Amino acid sequence: MNPQYYEYQLTLDKIIRRAAQLYPSVEVVYAPPGGSVTRSNYAREWDRIQRLGSVLEELEVQPGGPGRFGTRVAVLDWNTIRYYELYFAVPMYGAVLHTVNVLLAPEDIIYTMLQAQDEVLFVNEDLIALARVVTSLVKSIKKVVIMSDRAEHGEVSFDGVEVYWYEDLLRNARPYSFPDLSENTVATMMFTSGTTGRPKGTYFTHRQLVLHAMSVALSITAPPINANIYDVAMPLVPMFHVHSWGLPYIATLFGIKQVYPGRFDWGHVLRVIHEEGVTIVNGVPTILYNLLTHPDSPKYDLSRLKFIVGGAALPRGLLEEARKRGITVAQGFGLTETAPVILLGVEKPYMRDWPADRKRELSLSAGLPLPLVDVRIVDELGRDVPRDGRTMGELVVRAPWVAREYINDPEKTRYAWRDGWFHTDDIAVWDSEGYVWIMDRAKDVIKSGGEWISSTRLEDLISTHPGVYEVAVIGVPHPKWGERPIAIVVPKPGQRVTEEEIRNHLMRYVEQGVIPKWWVPDRVIIMESELPKTSTGKIDKKVLRDRLSQLGA
Amino acid sequence: MNPQYYEYQLTLDKIIRRAAQLYPSVEVVYAPPGGSVTRSNYAREWDRIQRLGSVLEELEVQPGGPGRFGTRVAVLDWNTIRYYELYFAVPMYGAVLHTVNVLLAPEDIIYTMLQAQDEVLFVNEDLIALARVVTSLVKSIKKVVIMSDRAEHGEVSFDGVEVYWYEDLLRNARPYSFPDLSENTVATMMFTSGTTGRPKGTYFTHRQLVLHAMSVALSITAPPINANIYDVAMPLVPMFHVHSWGLPYIATLFGIKQVYPGRFDWGHVLRVIHEEGVTIVNGVPTILYNLLTHPDSPKYDLSRLKFIVGGAALPRGLLEEARKRGITVAQGFGLTETAPVILLGVEKPYMRDWPADRKRELSLSAGLPLPLVDVRIVDELGRDVPRDGRTMGELVVRAPWVAREYINDPEKTRYAWRDGWFHTDDIAVWDSEGYVWIMDRAKDVIKSGGEWISSTRLEDLISTHPGVYEVAVIGVPHPKWGERPIAIVVPKPGQRVTEEEIRNHLMRYVEQGVIPKWWVPDRVIIMESELPKTSTGKIDKKVLRDRLSQLGA
Repeated sequence: MNPQYYEYQLTLDKIIRRAAQLYPSVEVVYAPPGGSVTRSNYAREWDRIQRLGSVLEELEVQPGGPGRFGTRVAVLDWNTIRYYELYFAVPMYGAVLHTVNVLLAPEDIIYTMLQAQDEVLFVNEDLIALARVVTSLVKSIKKVVIMSDRAEHGEVSFDGVEVYWYEDLLRNARPYSFPDLSENTVATMMFTSGTTGRPKGTYFTHRQLVLHAMSVALSITAPPINANIYDVAMPLVPMFHVHSWGLPYIATLFGIKQVYPGRFDWGHVLRVIHEEGVTIVNGVPTILYNLLTHPDSPKYDLSRLKFIVGGAALPRGLLEEARKRGITVAQGFGLTETAPVILLGVEKPYMRDWPADRKRELSLSAGLPLPLVDVRIVDELGRDVPRDGRTMGELVVRAPWVAREYINDPEKTRYAWRDGWFHTDDIAVWDSEGYVWIMDRAKDVIKSGGEWISSTRLEDLISTHPGVYEVAVIGVPHPKWGERPIAIVVPKPGQRVTEEEIRNHLMRYVEQGVIPKWWVPDRVIIMESELPKTSTGKIDKKVLRDRLSQLGA
Repeated sequence: MNPQYYEYQLTLDKIIRRAAQLYPSVEVVYAPPGGSVTRSNYAREWDRIQRLGSVLEELEVQPGGPGRFGTRVAVLDWNTIRYYELYFAVPMYGAVLHTVNVLLAPEDIIYTMLQAQDEVLFVNEDLIALARVVTSLVKSIKKVVIMSDRAEHGEVSFDGVEVYWYEDLLRNARPYSFPDLSENTVATMMFTSGTTGRPKGTYFTHRQLVLHAMSVALSITAPPINANIYDVAMPLVPMFHVHSWGLPYIATLFGIKQVYPGRFDWGHVLRVIHEEGVTIVNGVPTILYNLLTHPDSPKYDLSRLKFIVGGAALPRGLLEEARKRGITVAQGFGLTETAPVILLGVEKPYMRDWPADRKRELSLSAGLPLPLVDVRIVDELGRDVPRDGRTMGELVVRAPWVAREYINDPEKTRYAWRDGWFHTDDIAVWDSEGYVWIMDRAKDVIKSGGEWISSTRLEDLISTHPGVYEVAVIGVPHPKWGERPIAIVVPKPGQRVTEEEIRNHLMRYVEQGVIPKWWVPDRVIIMESELPKTSTGKIDKKVLRDRLSQLGA
């Protein structure tokens, strides 16, 4: 053995140092709505990140190590350049970045922060009111750092908490010399948005984030995304959602220009895409919908845009609308617990000359496993289901970036990690090409007469009806079949659809052999108001089920 | 902590399993000269690799673990599909693949195998004579497996050694279930070709090979290589040279078609490139030269070919010839000890609109550090030299895939790894863009009057003279200056060049400010025979120096 050997660790400093060294002048832009544009670059960001290291030291943040959490540093912010700086500085210091989901109910926000035992809070000036509530109840927080886009600021005081201003601290700080950390040091902490029960907490190490970034980066270089060094990235996944799917780290790894749009305002986002030449964004389907339907949208040429969509099934109609505008769409799949990306809808070598509609069909799948990701689809006895595109099973996964456990919840931990596989609770099928199709959440799949009906498959087909704005299919108890499907449909504004039309629409798919006849819902309820959503923009079926049971459905 | 958690290890099985699962029908082709073509694919290769696992078990090969070598399995072979299978099966079994450099002198081959303590030898039928010599002297080898391209084989016996036939063993073997190894298990062992002294041995773990493959794969997706899923790879770096620079692993990671051309025969290689649609190859400059100057070369369109060149400085003239044929060339840099790639000549985002000649100039550099690679260029006191494109220093490196130590040589190990950096013994400069230019080997740099003269820079400039075929510049002792440069020039066949012409040629560069006047060699020796080469095709300056000193130069 060689004592002089450098045990190279997969830590986040390797990514930002290299970007600062090789791509110092490449821009990192912050363009918040209504504010002035900050044109930074990797050299300047590296300088600010180093100063932020000294700020953390001054705030008495404590570094951790393998098996020992550093101080939890919570952030309440939109997609800002300061969040980008915290993405690197906090983990590189050895502390844990707790990316708080500001869209949760305040009660749940407080719950997550109590679980995390946050001690320092970085908060956007917009969210001071929320921070006051939080600090009054989460007593572990002793220090609050306010992040403001304004050049001047007044006085702000919090009861029993020290208050600092981010830019003041940075201005007076010296560059910090970050330590050589173990790659197994915990870097980030976050909570699932949990449609059932309380948010569940989990955490990721430097190694996990670096390997996730490398693998996703490699995947998106394949068609249809064809990511390359000329791309300009703008994360449209909130930075409090699972590292914005890794895009801030991935863009830094590529050394490409990045743009942060602040709090989301879709007219503003469209303008920034145009003005800054943004070519790669990510987001849930709702965000794609917002970009396409905003009144200003027709003014802009979106044909250079590549949209990585995930977080909820991509409706076929939305994909078609995006295609009409020339947007390249690739669907990915993952969970908070998988850091998050494990599948991505990339093409294969021999698909080059496939007809466009065949490729388009594939882009509705959840995609192929990324490099270093191993997935299986298993039945209730843990046996692999055939790759026939129809036999459903649960998706289970192994990857270097699957979270180790749920915080303070050994029972849920044991339930999720069984036999060395992480159980996603998602019901899926494989097709013969190896593309995974998510059919349902385990809790949403409708068990009818001993067979399974995919609620999302039915939703997808109903959504192709031209008058349908939103649709949810849920299972309701049935004395004979166990469960039967019911569809809840919201028509497009100013349009009318009837139960009969929806049934006839589905019967056409039955005739084409797309679905069996017994999948057709027993009832179609037409609703005039929007469907209830979770904080991540997914339809909240739990709330829907409660409402329906109140209605006696 | 969670006992059910799967501690995902970065092991080679992850790469081939995924290729077999997602790209089963993508071809792996073996097209040896004069033999019939084997059209395999990832599914079939995975099956053969699994059978090979059982064969290793049958041969009583023992797996190792972290800090404990498994059985050393030596291979004497060309670039064959069986070598590809061994690249995976031996490390995945937990044993150590010793890739023996068949171009070393037999004495050195035996030296390396004695150092490695090889126990099993896989040998190409072509090389049986060599294997007989080896097994008679390397007594640790108990078993020899012969790899033949012929369907039928006769009887072959070796004294005191059991003899097997690869295809017979495979045919009768069941698929093996490879173990879950630690990523720190040693996977491969190899020896530097050492222009000074005996070959030095080193080794690499699974983790090192996987991270190297990921990082190089990501790098080559950038311009000018623009690697993508439609590429077809053919390794033209011998597979006994540092994992053929990782290309067999990288191509498998991409899931692209691969082609193995057997023993190198340049007319055959050109035909296979054409017939199989090969688009990515790698090799030393001599191989590029061979492809360009072969009599059959003009018959083929090489304009789709991307050539990753390394192992020796790329002469400007050769780059121009390749460009004329439409070949895309990117130069990389590395050492056996660095697995090998650490630098690659990729473009940056803002170079898109640079004029072609400015980009071409950059492609003569050794390139930019890869993702996860950290390099410095330091003076004799270990201080970073300025990025001025002229101040020379030693290139030192950190990366996850730098070898840990030299086998049985603590002294050389201590010399190479100092202050946590691996010392490459290469003299380099940085330019302001961060591209590294290798100026010389530390032992070849000419120290004249307290200043350094780069022998390779002078060679590069002399090689632009139209009559020059080969050139070497070496330092000879000088009573006043310490050392002074001497050039040895071999003219192109049928051409004459004189000392005077070479001097005048260099003086033009002096007038343009490219080099200082005192760099011009004191003597230019015109030689009619080819310069002596090492087994890797590099000019052997040690031999040259010896010859010159015998001549009293």
